[in-house]
Amino acid sequence: MDLKTCLKKMQLVGVLAFATVDKDGAPQIRNISAIHYESDALYFYTARGKNFCQELLEDGRVQILCYTKYKEMIRLSGKAYAVREEEQEKWRDTIFEEQPYLANVYPGNTRSIGIIFCIDQGEVEYFNLGVNPIFRETYSLGNAIIREKGYVITDACIGCGKCEKLCPQRCIERGTPYKINQQHCLHCGNCYENCPVQAIMRK
Amino acid sequence: MDLKTCLKKMQLVGVLAFATVDKDGAPQIRNISAIHYESDALYFYTARGKNFCQELLEDGRVQILCYTKYKEMIRLSGKAYAVREEEQEKWRDTIFEEQPYLANVYPGNTRSIGIIFCIDQGEVEYFNLGVNPIFRETYSLGNAIIREKGYVITDACIGCGKCEKLCPQRCIERGTPYKINQQHCLHCGNCYENCPVQAIMRK
Repeated sequence: MDLKTCLKKMQLVGVLAFATVDKDGAPQIRNISAIHYESDALYFYTARGKNFCQELLEDGRVQILCYTKYKEMIRLSGKAYAVREEEQEKWRDTIFEEQPYLANVYPGNTRSIGIIFCIDQGEVEYFNLGVNPIFRETYSLGNAIIREKGYVITDACIGCGKCEKLCPQRCIERGTPYKINQQHCLHCGNCYENCPVQAIMRK
Repeated sequence: MDLKTCLKKMQLVGVLAFATVDKDGAPQIRNISAIHYESDALYFYTARGKNFCQELLEDGRVQILCYTKYKEMIRLSGKAYAVREEEQEKWRDTIFEEQPYLANVYPGNTRSIGIIFCIDQGEVEYFNLGVNPIFRETYSLGNAIIREKGYVITDACIGCGKCEKLCPQRCIERGTPYKINQQHCLHCGNCYENCPVQAIMRK
């Protein structure tokens, strides 16, 4: 898997879930399909009157989730910003051209109630529960720094092998110390909870 | 539409998007399908080692989004809590029985790394962009109070009719004052922005 294929899959799925945080710090989520894809960025449209738009203008942090028919999850985390005034119309018209149904929702000039936001920096996580063992990988969009998640076995490992036996995905390899194969890890925490010498750390 | 049908549709769609807020106040979203439905509550399973689980234990606020093949969005907002210790096993086994694929992800006893959470109070919003005009309605799960959103035309309305003409969904009716048909409102804000006497308020 790679970034380009992930973006292509998001485009094919079409309707994605966008999560933001509202003024009370509560999670907010909704489906968005008015999205245009470039190789290094995505642009999307929403109306200025919606809470979604306020949340983007005030905070901007957004996570986008795509679920494919092959049981793949693709998740983009980034910060959205409103594109410059002089570029608004161009991207708005591009999106309305690519997605003719939008003209039913916002007919005629009413489309001008919308703003175009862009995300060109972020992390893209790929997670596939449909394969055995499960598979995950993370890619960078723009120059975003990837924040690693999950667990790691430290040098405090005594090599007892308990973690290896208890791992639901059998993704821990023997060694000194034992090693978690990060691409196949669920992040379930079973090794972490059961290590007799607390040699496993959360990243 | 009604609450019962919304819960049924969520169950039929199966894989839903769950949004929470992490320790940095950032939005987090992922797909969850390990869900059991009762008529007045839903129960779901996740592993203790996942960030998702930490976010539920620390904050608990969650929004769940369901998108049907008929272009309906169903959104449940509520607070999740871990069910009592003595009920954990019962619900866990129920979910693993209903969804046999889970045993591939968490084989044998490894399922004990998971916790069951419950949501029995919340708002359920139904939003259908696939009909013309669009349609929305909100229902209460448990005894949750529904927080109204959108816009309302106040008595300051001078009856000029500008909002009616500019509404993309033509959901504003003449009268004294004019009135927004809330079931068909996009919450786009076009009336609000263009009212010449600022008679329209955000709820």
